[in-house]
Amino acid sequence: MAAAAPPPAPTPTPTPPNTVPAGSTPIGHPLFSRVRLATPSDVPHIHKLIHQMAVFERLTHLFSATESALSANLFSDPPFRSFTIFILEVSPKPFPENSPHNANPNYTPVVHIIHSDLPVEDPEREIFKSEDENIAVAGFVLFFPNFSSFLAKPGFYIEDIFVRECYRRKGLGKILLSAVAKQAVKMDYGRVEWVVLDWNTNAIQFYEEMGAQILPEWRICRLTGDALQVYGNTN
Amino acid sequence: MAAAAPPPAPTPTPTPPNTVPAGSTPIGHPLFSRVRLATPSDVPHIHKLIHQMAVFERLTHLFSATESALSANLFSDPPFRSFTIFILEVSPKPFPENSPHNANPNYTPVVHIIHSDLPVEDPEREIFKSEDENIAVAGFVLFFPNFSSFLAKPGFYIEDIFVRECYRRKGLGKILLSAVAKQAVKMDYGRVEWVVLDWNTNAIQFYEEMGAQILPEWRICRLTGDALQVYGNTN
Repeated sequence: MAAAAPPPAPTPTPTPPNTVPAGSTPIGHPLFSRVRLATPSDVPHIHKLIHQMAVFERLTHLFSATESALSANLFSDPPFRSFTIFILEVSPKPFPENSPHNANPNYTPVVHIIHSDLPVEDPEREIFKSEDENIAVAGFVLFFPNFSSFLAKPGFYIEDIFVRECYRRKGLGKILLSAVAKQAVKMDYGRVEWVVLDWNTNAIQFYEEMGAQILPEWRICRLTGDALQVYGNTN
Repeated sequence: MAAAAPPPAPTPTPTPPNTVPAGSTPIGHPLFSRVRLATPSDVPHIHKLIHQMAVFERLTHLFSATESALSANLFSDPPFRSFTIFILEVSPKPFPENSPHNANPNYTPVVHIIHSDLPVEDPEREIFKSEDENIAVAGFVLFFPNFSSFLAKPGFYIEDIFVRECYRRKGLGKILLSAVAKQAVKMDYGRVEWVVLDWNTNAIQFYEEMGAQILPEWRICRLTGDALQVYGNTN
């Protein structure tokens, strides 16, 4: 588990999905954002983002993901039924209307426009270049169904939510979390859950402002490594 | 989430799957246990067990499960790929060799024999009667795949583990948890995780003896009810 979200920021102006705001005259420097389903070709970017998240959480000693393992274990089931990734992209220009992502039958990309006073300096623009030279991958959210037996209903569990450092404090974490919550409502799911480190007070405040409850009494138990492997030989 | 397991107890004698221990002369009162995959016909028992768990956890105000919702939301995907339930059954006699559960292609039932000094008095034997008049449902475990991005591997998340009161302190919780761990190893999954209430010190000790780490720093965040529904109308 790993959940690193930026602190709260002004709510971006929503635009109808898949469209460029008609006649908008952005003040300052507009930044267009897009949330779309990941595809296998996103794996190199996803791998780098997961590593950045491990660095942020000071948990690189637990990081052993490889691109080939990600490719093998993601994308094998339809999105939303199993492990699902939304990619967050940004661009100083409107997203192309003829993007192949707009034809994805499982999810219509969601576009917002953010007005910021200063242009964003992205030192990793080349590494995270996406569909065209204007578009950069800025973050992701990885989630999958869980099940509440008390509700007898599925929900979503967010394993990771991450925005790259230069794009934080712009409301992009809220856009990612909202996209998962909106999908949960659409599917009549009962809950969205995730975890946060108790020292990450910025994130806790952000989540509470998003409407989440923090459950203080529950502790995570984990069986892994050699302690798990011994069960392979038991009856 | 809801995890209520009995405290540790002597390890039961394992027997080869699907067989009655040859030539065994149990001391005292033998109790045969079987772990098998749930089927749709188990839903009435599963519903009652979930309610008993809510009572144990003092969380009945969160309980709204119905049998029809359970039937609608479980069993739609192959076991282990999505929401999965193992049923724990007990019997004073060996389990029938010609049981239809033995022909389940997805999971071979696991049978153990427990020796106890006194026979178990089960006040709800009639309500929880299962395959034949000797067999009673004693508990269950509900689990589903999760995903560790640091490992780039799936794992299992245990949503519920529950043993009915009269069958506690006999090692049956250990049998249920071990069955999930063994399946995880079989599938080359990286972790088994679940949560525990911090006041449930018996359970915490039990889990630690099973090899689990308790992660003290993580807190669960939950978006549900009206706070979730508002996202249905946002962009």
